[in-house]
Amino acid sequence: MADAALICDTNMWDKDTPAITTSLRGLCGEEIIIHASDRDLHSGFYGSAAANPNHVLARIIADLRDAEGRITIPGFYDGVPEPSQALLDGWGKLGFTTEAFLGEIGLSVPAGEKGRSTLEMVWSRPTCEVNGMGGGYQGAGFKTVIPAMASAKISFRLVFDQDPHKVRAAFRDFVKARVPADCRVEFLEHGSGRAVAFDTSAPVFQKTQAALTDEWGKEAAFIGGGGSIPVTTMIKERMGMDVVMAGFGLSDDRIHSPNEKYELKSFHKGIRSWARVLAAL
Amino acid sequence: MADAALICDTNMWDKDTPAITTSLRGLCGEEIIIHASDRDLHSGFYGSAAANPNHVLARIIADLRDAEGRITIPGFYDGVPEPSQALLDGWGKLGFTTEAFLGEIGLSVPAGEKGRSTLEMVWSRPTCEVNGMGGGYQGAGFKTVIPAMASAKISFRLVFDQDPHKVRAAFRDFVKARVPADCRVEFLEHGSGRAVAFDTSAPVFQKTQAALTDEWGKEAAFIGGGGSIPVTTMIKERMGMDVVMAGFGLSDDRIHSPNEKYELKSFHKGIRSWARVLAAL
Repeated sequence: MADAALICDTNMWDKDTPAITTSLRGLCGEEIIIHASDRDLHSGFYGSAAANPNHVLARIIADLRDAEGRITIPGFYDGVPEPSQALLDGWGKLGFTTEAFLGEIGLSVPAGEKGRSTLEMVWSRPTCEVNGMGGGYQGAGFKTVIPAMASAKISFRLVFDQDPHKVRAAFRDFVKARVPADCRVEFLEHGSGRAVAFDTSAPVFQKTQAALTDEWGKEAAFIGGGGSIPVTTMIKERMGMDVVMAGFGLSDDRIHSPNEKYELKSFHKGIRSWARVLAAL
Repeated sequence: MADAALICDTNMWDKDTPAITTSLRGLCGEEIIIHASDRDLHSGFYGSAAANPNHVLARIIADLRDAEGRITIPGFYDGVPEPSQALLDGWGKLGFTTEAFLGEIGLSVPAGEKGRSTLEMVWSRPTCEVNGMGGGYQGAGFKTVIPAMASAKISFRLVFDQDPHKVRAAFRDFVKARVPADCRVEFLEHGSGRAVAFDTSAPVFQKTQAALTDEWGKEAAFIGGGGSIPVTTMIKERMGMDVVMAGFGLSDDRIHSPNEKYELKSFHKGIRSWARVLAAL
């Protein structure tokens, strides 16, 4: 069996500073479909009288957070400890600013839990995001319809010991409690994975850090990761192997967006970095 | 100038009972588009930290009603009197049941204001319905995206003296107050019309009622209408003319839905009815 797995689908700290991602969030993806009347209705005839699944769905989504930005599903934060002071201190030294992080995407106001830093939010706190929702007429112009159904795709990023199956079950109960008696909800499961974190004192992390530092002339940082790479968790849990995640993406790569790019410097120095890492191991 | 206008885009009371619709609700249609980040985002990197327009929109829609089903826009009910006892008594004699009305479309629980009858709701109360909404990824499978924008088409059915322009302005203020400082909302206007009601003691209504009663062998009913036919209001307001709305649609015609139909009996007896009405006038 191999000693460690290497994954390069991660980011650098910034364009000059290489990084090893030492933790990833887990994921629980779920789609809900609210069914109301047995056909689309004319809102002049049935408005107010008939359940409108768009309203039912909006109420569910709005209820998912309280005024402080906390997720309200009972038990959701079970298994989520406060990050250690050592971890927070390390992050504090990275020179991260919310202004720069959000400014790069045209925003300025952190949207999550009040009283927590942005970095804490994206690296050590769980999230609940509506990735897609739709119901009724969405084309050009207007149709005064009450749709028969509406749906949403919702994902939770999980941290530390949150159990995706428990989160899913609690979410379903939360939704069911908000569906009117004459409507019906359908659930579709879209993937589950636990969060993962590695002990960076292991030789493979130290050797990789040294190799990256040699190539880039700047000490490689150990950073958290907000995304999810389910295979990392599987390799750790089932094979007991360390997984070194060292990639060369940048935060302005517009990942998963139109006009995604990859930096030429990352391409060239990334190739040289991997040669050094493999030689060191 | 003509003495009256005749419109046949309305319904019978039931398949054996002809009807003249003597009031219609007005309409105010509005589309809102919430813009957040300047591109779609990866929810693993930006989840919680970046404003999600789906959440902003869901909050706005959920806030539009309180727990009693009342619409919460300030001033929305200005110009909405309680229906007269005479009107309520007349409706009480029609043999209407919520069970049958909602049962026909697969529902059973009236969704509007608590403490009001279904008929009152669809004939004499204003409504607020989200006719369409959408944001983010809605295709098959899953994409962990935070969309750059989300939108909704919302219509208000208006009654009595509600002013569509005042309703629109109040709605826009309501929305703006719920959009985060780093997001932006765009409004698109989709039509405005006031409610309209006619005095059925005028000869044209009496003669039409008699002609319909002769053709169908059952007294034609004077009924309210939940929908909106903006030209009716324009004819009344600008030309001072009465508008007789006598049509032969049925509630199970699946209007504005797939498999819409028109009853053959309505077709044949409708032709004969109009010949009688024209002769009587």
